[in-house]
Amino acid sequence: MLNAADDAFEACLRGILPPAAFRDPAPYLTEPRGRWQGRGVVVAPGSVDEVAAVVRACAQARVGVVPYGGGTGLVGGQLMTEGPVPVILSLERMARIRAVYPGEDVLVAESGVVLATVQAAARAHGRLFPLSLASEGSARIGGLLATNAGGVNVLRYGNARDLTLGVEAVLADGSVLHGLKTLRKDNTGYDLRHLLIGSEGTLGVITAAALKLFPRPRETATAFCATPSPQAACDLLPRLRDRLGETISAFELLSAQGMAFLAEHLPEVPRPPVQGAWFVLVEVGAGRESGVAAALEAGLAEGFEAGLVTDAALAQSQAQAQAFWRIREDTPEANRRVGAVASHDVSLPLAALPRFIETAAAAVAALDPGLRINCFGHIGDGNLHYNIFPPQGVARDACDALRPQVVRAVHDLVDQYGGSVSAEHGIGRFKTGDLARYGDPAKLKAMAAIKAALDPLGILNPGAMIADAKDDAA
Amino acid sequence: MLNAADDAFEACLRGILPPAAFRDPAPYLTEPRGRWQGRGVVVAPGSVDEVAAVVRACAQARVGVVPYGGGTGLVGGQLMTEGPVPVILSLERMARIRAVYPGEDVLVAESGVVLATVQAAARAHGRLFPLSLASEGSARIGGLLATNAGGVNVLRYGNARDLTLGVEAVLADGSVLHGLKTLRKDNTGYDLRHLLIGSEGTLGVITAAALKLFPRPRETATAFCATPSPQAACDLLPRLRDRLGETISAFELLSAQGMAFLAEHLPEVPRPPVQGAWFVLVEVGAGRESGVAAALEAGLAEGFEAGLVTDAALAQSQAQAQAFWRIREDTPEANRRVGAVASHDVSLPLAALPRFIETAAAAVAALDPGLRINCFGHIGDGNLHYNIFPPQGVARDACDALRPQVVRAVHDLVDQYGGSVSAEHGIGRFKTGDLARYGDPAKLKAMAAIKAALDPLGILNPGAMIADAKDDAA
Repeated sequence: MLNAADDAFEACLRGILPPAAFRDPAPYLTEPRGRWQGRGVVVAPGSVDEVAAVVRACAQARVGVVPYGGGTGLVGGQLMTEGPVPVILSLERMARIRAVYPGEDVLVAESGVVLATVQAAARAHGRLFPLSLASEGSARIGGLLATNAGGVNVLRYGNARDLTLGVEAVLADGSVLHGLKTLRKDNTGYDLRHLLIGSEGTLGVITAAALKLFPRPRETATAFCATPSPQAACDLLPRLRDRLGETISAFELLSAQGMAFLAEHLPEVPRPPVQGAWFVLVEVGAGRESGVAAALEAGLAEGFEAGLVTDAALAQSQAQAQAFWRIREDTPEANRRVGAVASHDVSLPLAALPRFIETAAAAVAALDPGLRINCFGHIGDGNLHYNIFPPQGVARDACDALRPQVVRAVHDLVDQYGGSVSAEHGIGRFKTGDLARYGDPAKLKAMAAIKAALDPLGILNPGAMIADAKDDAA
Repeated sequence: MLNAADDAFEACLRGILPPAAFRDPAPYLTEPRGRWQGRGVVVAPGSVDEVAAVVRACAQARVGVVPYGGGTGLVGGQLMTEGPVPVILSLERMARIRAVYPGEDVLVAESGVVLATVQAAARAHGRLFPLSLASEGSARIGGLLATNAGGVNVLRYGNARDLTLGVEAVLADGSVLHGLKTLRKDNTGYDLRHLLIGSEGTLGVITAAALKLFPRPRETATAFCATPSPQAACDLLPRLRDRLGETISAFELLSAQGMAFLAEHLPEVPRPPVQGAWFVLVEVGAGRESGVAAALEAGLAEGFEAGLVTDAALAQSQAQAQAFWRIREDTPEANRRVGAVASHDVSLPLAALPRFIETAAAAVAALDPGLRINCFGHIGDGNLHYNIFPPQGVARDACDALRPQVVRAVHDLVDQYGGSVSAEHGIGRFKTGDLARYGDPAKLKAMAAIKAALDPLGILNPGAMIADAKDDAA
């Protein structure tokens, strides 16, 4: 059993941390969708030694530690809503870029560095750090790694884990894992880097990471296409790949429903340059004199002839490319303003994806034919944000009773098609029930064994990812 | 303590496996360098259920299990030289390609499939499986994943782990981890795939894997260049990248010493098309009409002007490209014929690599100025095969006493420069002492905890990677 971070424990923390490390808790106790309220004593250590000292103190007193990055997580991994009051360990003061090695395409950043800052540092050295997502202005490296963040460039560059060469982390006993090697190849023992990445702070507190940089594409091209169906969108991708190789960095699906939400709630966002029921936003990039724009145009022309594209606009300027991207990037905000009954972050094998979209629509309609669906996302990765909204004119609260049924129907279908019920957002505290329901039994058992081995007192992010019986009700 | 696989235990295995699963042990008890002799009862189960039955029987009787792929490993991971006689579990009869999904670039192969067979299956579907290494004609998928194999295309496509979407594995209690999802994104729990990959059979027996395929480059180009120094080679890479983006699939260093070994011991191998002290073999590939050959030529011309390339030959035909590659691929065989005093598979941060080559040469010369060095390898990944040979006319045996000093001097330097003492070959049983010496203490402690948690009886590949006191002397 854990103990609460009470006044006596806070006094103990004041003995090991400078005054600058203490924070007013209020801003740390909410989450982006405003549904849940956390609790905790907030400290922001300024060095790996201070992080280690906090974790050691928590281990000694059996107090829970909730690691905190930018607070942008959507599944409550950064928020403990019940149980003994924990220490919230914010990495915001570990915000140094320790080194940049442009010649070998490596950047070493502390966990508190905001993603946009890493992107800018890479750009300043003529390189690219390709991780890119809506919250990049506030999400921090530690949280991005702890949740193995995805975003729009996974198709070409991979998830956060694929962009990480090494990590430094504080383990549950307060020892420091010195794993910041910048090597491309290192087969000396178990890959603790990949175990920590995506473990949502339950196995260690990542304090710094060696990140991969890439050549900055010198020539890019962006197209906004109308496509008759998700099937056509899926068929278009391998055809474009045949011509464009791995230069395709983004391949995003958007729907007419999403355009209607944008037009209604964010009228300042540019309208789509083409008309249709479904849309694909494609971006490609390559080296100097690669002719990649012409290749994309030729690929889309082939797609048009094959009936996979009904209309397409190729951005004629950087400003126009940004306008296309704004349609994609403001879609989540329009969704928030409409107010979803249920949001799903799912992935599917590409071959099953169009069928999933069809059958899920039917399953949702069977619950209530008026429910509106905005299905969009990183279709190139098989990742859909599948969001369900109340019937026109109906308040979200009126659909509360429907919510569990909708979630269950959608996730059951995803599972049936061999998909994942959390493609990129993680499990946190809101999806522990889904993991328990859909997870492979041998995997769940191994996870519990690893957690018990590396954090025998259970102090690291208690209740996240692996629920105890109590937290499961949350 | 483990028990030996004695006659009684073999009789027990005969009760759970068909006669076709039993093998004459002799061919399984040697290793490629012929230095060590193994022991064991060899079985080759034909299905994941049979693998699980063997592991369960071994767990019950506390008998060690040594998983066995193609037997090509260079660090003794497949070979138990002492301790109680184990069961050698060969995956050779699980050799089915279960599925190919060319549209979504995925192939599912059982662990016993030979790498060349996977490459051919991908090719038959117009796709590329990029893992490529000298032993591809006999190495099997399970062993390649268990050791996180590297090879010549890591620069562009990554190690074996980067090419794997999911694994099926039998865990130490005989349960089956069903992790064969073909998804690009799946953030549901700890990444057991990456924990098993590279764990050298000590945490589970991988029985099948979902592998990533890639577009087949439609246009490729291969150049063999003379370069004045390793520093110049390292400087050439980012310059080429600036122009060629990620289309560079291989960037290999070769030395004049290596050419002399080839000329002497394998005179049938083509001579290098250019003269120099150091050489770089570059290969690039991209989509149709990408003009990648012209771009490589232009990049090398820039390199020539900058003094980084002194001469270069661009292959004018597929046959000539193959001739260039033969020089690289037959280098290990020439080395074997010369007979190395010590072979090192090390990686270094690219920035430190030229300095390492200089200082290591001095350190080796300090031990004996006559020692010959063939330093070559995947320099684009910072991975060098750094091999030391007896002075001209001296027998290898005469240098036996020098061997530990040479290894220690080289590995100490590697460690000092932030490198790895096993870049791609792994730890196995021959390098457990190196891991214990150079490994991060927190990492070693976490590894031991994970091993104890997932294999509490210690039956999986005993003595590999983590030595017990007894095996350390081996």
